[in-house]
Amino acid sequence: MGVYKTIREEAFEANLEIKRRGLAIYTWGNASAFDPDKGIFAIKPSGVEYDELTPKKMVLVDLEGKVIGGELNPSSDTKTHLVLYREFKGIRGITHTHSPYAAAWAQAGKPVPVFGTTHADHCGREIPCTEYINPEAVKNNYELETGNLIAETFKKGNLDPVQITMVLTAGHGPFTWGTSAAQSVYHGVILEEICKMALFTIMIDSNAKPLPEHIIKKHWERKHGPDAYYGQ
Amino acid sequence: MGVYKTIREEAFEANLEIKRRGLAIYTWGNASAFDPDKGIFAIKPSGVEYDELTPKKMVLVDLEGKVIGGELNPSSDTKTHLVLYREFKGIRGITHTHSPYAAAWAQAGKPVPVFGTTHADHCGREIPCTEYINPEAVKNNYELETGNLIAETFKKGNLDPVQITMVLTAGHGPFTWGTSAAQSVYHGVILEEICKMALFTIMIDSNAKPLPEHIIKKHWERKHGPDAYYGQ
Amino acid sequence: MGVYKTIREEAFEANLEIKRRGLAIYTWGNASAFDPDKGIFAIKPSGVEYDELTPKKMVLVDLEGKVIGGELNPSSDTKTHLVLYREFKGIRGITHTHSPYAAAWAQAGKPVPVFGTTHADHCGREIPCTEYINPEAVKNNYELETGNLIAETFKKGNLDPVQITMVLTAGHGPFTWGTSAAQSVYHGVILEEICKMALFTIMIDSNAKPLPEHIIKKHWERKHGPDAYYGQ
Amino acid sequence: MGVYKTIREEAFEANLEIKRRGLAIYTWGNASAFDPDKGIFAIKPSGVEYDELTPKKMVLVDLEGKVIGGELNPSSDTKTHLVLYREFKGIRGITHTHSPYAAAWAQAGKPVPVFGTTHADHCGREIPCTEYINPEAVKNNYELETGNLIAETFKKGNLDPVQITMVLTAGHGPFTWGTSAAQSVYHGVILEEICKMALFTIMIDSNAKPLPEHIIKKHWERKHGPDAYYGQ
Repeated sequence: MGVYKTIREEAFEANLEIKRRGLAIYTWGNASAFDPDKGIFAIKPSGVEYDELTPKKMVLVDLEGKVIGGELNPSSDTKTHLVLYREFKGIRGITHTHSPYAAAWAQAGKPVPVFGTTHADHCGREIPCTEYINPEAVKNNYELETGNLIAETFKKGNLDPVQITMVLTAGHGPFTWGTSAAQSVYHGVILEEICKMALFTIMIDSNAKPLPEHIIKKHWERKHGPDAYYGQ
Repeated sequence: MGVYKTIREEAFEANLEIKRRGLAIYTWGNASAFDPDKGIFAIKPSGVEYDELTPKKMVLVDLEGKVIGGELNPSSDTKTHLVLYREFKGIRGITHTHSPYAAAWAQAGKPVPVFGTTHADHCGREIPCTEYINPEAVKNNYELETGNLIAETFKKGNLDPVQITMVLTAGHGPFTWGTSAAQSVYHGVILEEICKMALFTIMIDSNAKPLPEHIIKKHWERKHGPDAYYGQ
Repeated sequence: MGVYKTIREEAFEANLEIKRRGLAIYTWGNASAFDPDKGIFAIKPSGVEYDELTPKKMVLVDLEGKVIGGELNPSSDTKTHLVLYREFKGIRGITHTHSPYAAAWAQAGKPVPVFGTTHADHCGREIPCTEYINPEAVKNNYELETGNLIAETFKKGNLDPVQITMVLTAGHGPFTWGTSAAQSVYHGVILEEICKMALFTIMIDSNAKPLPEHIIKKHWERKHGPDAYYGQ
Repeated sequence: MGVYKTIREEAFEANLEIKRRGLAIYTWGNASAFDPDKGIFAIKPSGVEYDELTPKKMVLVDLEGKVIGGELNPSSDTKTHLVLYREFKGIRGITHTHSPYAAAWAQAGKPVPVFGTTHADHCGREIPCTEYINPEAVKNNYELETGNLIAETFKKGNLDPVQITMVLTAGHGPFTWGTSAAQSVYHGVILEEICKMALFTIMIDSNAKPLPEHIIKKHWERKHGPDAYYGQ
């Protein structure tokens, strides 16, 4: 496995964590780990169960989509990962699943309002949701265009992918990312919990109001601001 | 067990998988495995807990409903399986459960709209739901007529049981099938997940719209079309 | 433990099953086993965690409510059990829990409609729900009067407790019974599942219609009628 | 660990129980144990996973907020705990989590009505919910002011924290307390179950009525009144 040992192991561990955390049944999720110096990422092979994965089975892909290592086909979602690594500077891991609460918000095509501090601790605004991907984009290069759609959603909304590490693709499901493959899964778990709480909240009050801006800001900044003091 | 060793073992494994995947409590589910060359299927014995099953306890039944092997009574739903094996050419396994989300859609008597790609990956249209079975059919031969009702629902709707491997029987629950007993349980798990996500989706937006047709088609075809590239 | 060895062991096993099946947290459920010849039942001691139970700790109580064996106080709900053993001839086990779906229907004060065959397999009509217990009854002898309220609900509704083995007490929770302590817990598990499915059903369609009577009758009778053929 | 051995061990055990009971993922909950004679409490260190905790890692803090023992930073919520120990005489343990059903009621900003006896057994009135914390309080000293907000909510509502051991902070989540750290987690588990049942109840009937006062009183008093007889 040579020089790519680390990202393969990172990707392997992150894919196992998807299963351990209950984010996916069967093969319904994939994680990748990126080495920005080499421009290479390691990603789950397509259609292989989590129990059968090994670090060596992780597929190495460059930012043009060329497989440069591994004997299996990379995940069908590889080109979406690729675009996000190209467009979102500074990220080093991506996770995609069909976790049910996040998928439901994606299926409803709705951004998730900031109803509480659990959300604000991890994302200082509503979780963005893309438009449905258009027919032409599907025809051209579906998975690549899914990445473009996410990137455009961030550009249009003037969103910073370093601060907003989660997105819903309309009618599909969540993508999350972070400074490592492990952190991208961590954000996937958190997104699922935020989406569950948000669903419960609107069931209690279908007109529930978002958290006031001063509390959102406080929670975000005590964890992520320049004077952060949350955690060790 | 002689020449039927394989289908008995297949049926045995599929019934255990029903339990492992949480699709049934007590004895609320049954799976069968079919040998089309011999016209024989192996099915769970009636009223026996999953923990007490052995391959040998699987009951062998022919397509007239005659028990040709095994010491226990076959599942009460045997005649429904039988009709489906007769009517749906090419299927080799059937699973019936009362998994709660699928049963709830069946109880509401509603087909499940294609709200997202999770659904479209496994079924390219809404999950069909039969009418309630009529009083005469119940009187004549209830379980056999349940099979007929499913078959008629497919004929009327011009549905292909090779592509649409799932149905809800109104007021009752799901039947799923496939090219093996194992695949029929797999489809049962997926149907339950689709039904859960669909319920969550309409709780977020009671007017949630189905996925646009071009995305449904793409997802179905990348897995099942002539140029499928999803999975290994 | 002498002649009461069996009912103590039965009650012990049934109480453990409450926990195993997830019907109760902490001490929120109790089961008893009745010996109709001796007019004695064994019941869970009050306030003792399931993990600390032994057959010997089960408390023996007669139908006047007198403790005739055991060193601990019997469950606070003992007098409710007692009345049901007196009033409902033929039952030999009772289970009471606060399982969340059944408790929610009880809290809403609503009988559970027969939405599907899962329900009809185990109860041929809606699950009855009592009125709220009145202030005088609470003052007099709360737990005994809870038993009376259940018995009156059955008398008024002309319900047969041998066929309808489940009730919701308004604002409180479920009581279930059967021909053994084990069967009473089994009915508790089934009631919880029925209540869960019924909740999901009205979330899909708030105007969901009950199952037509001919299907209810068929499902009940194939399991419980004179010509029952369901199960071995 | 010297003289603080007990409260460190108590706090340690209570934090583990938060995880065992499923009240928190990652580090989303903290418990503390208080010694009123010394005016010192032991609390979870900030940002440390439950699996990595040891009694020695618990941080000792006095009622001015000064760390007097331990090498790690105390939980970010330390000042909220501190205020509650100051204001609520007689309490010796506090638990804060983001358990999803309780958090959802907090996010909806609604007190939880007493829909049933499960609730009345543990709290004789609706679970109070604070107002949103105001901008000035957030600016000054957020976590300390969260404690003040809870204390004021109790003063204004004329609520007794010995009897009402649970509160929701609007847009945030639950705080529970008790006569020990262990009891504060126990109340956290119960609050989550009450909130779950209450959500299910209003899904069955959005106009569900609270339990009549005479039943609330009876259930509260048989467990907590001068003539309590519930439990051993």
